[in-house]
Amino acid sequence: MCEANAYLLKDGNEELIMEAVDLVEQEEDGVYRLVSIFGDQKTVRAHIKSMALVDHRVIFEPYPS
Amino acid sequence: MCEANAYLLKDGNEELIMEAVDLVEQEEDGVYRLVSIFGDQKTVRAHIKSMALVDHRVIFEPYPS
Repeated sequence: MCEANAYLLKDGNEELIMEAVDLVEQEEDGVYRLVSIFGDQKTVRAHIKSMALVDHRVIFEPYPS
Repeated sequence: MCEANAYLLKDGNEELIMEAVDLVEQEEDGVYRLVSIFGDQKTVRAHIKSMALVDHRVIFEPYPS
């Protein structure tokens, strides 16, 4: 399976937001809804800063930063 | 491998930008650099609208839309 872990960059540290994320949907500018393969949902006020898909990582940055 | 195909939403259609994307990096607000597992690189002026990682899809939307 190709889900990824989602992290929020805070003060230079990567804080785990959610494991095993499958779906990421932009709800409005700077707001994303995450859904894991287990059906957990979370909304973050952030931008997507980077992704490393083979490494299963998605990094969010608070928005506005 | 968990790379994904990247699409740009244009007039309601999904236009393939790049196959086998591994890395996505925000260069500035609304500008992302994509790198495939083959080392191909491309820059898009867009926001990330949605991702379906298990389905290997990342959808970009032109920015400003």
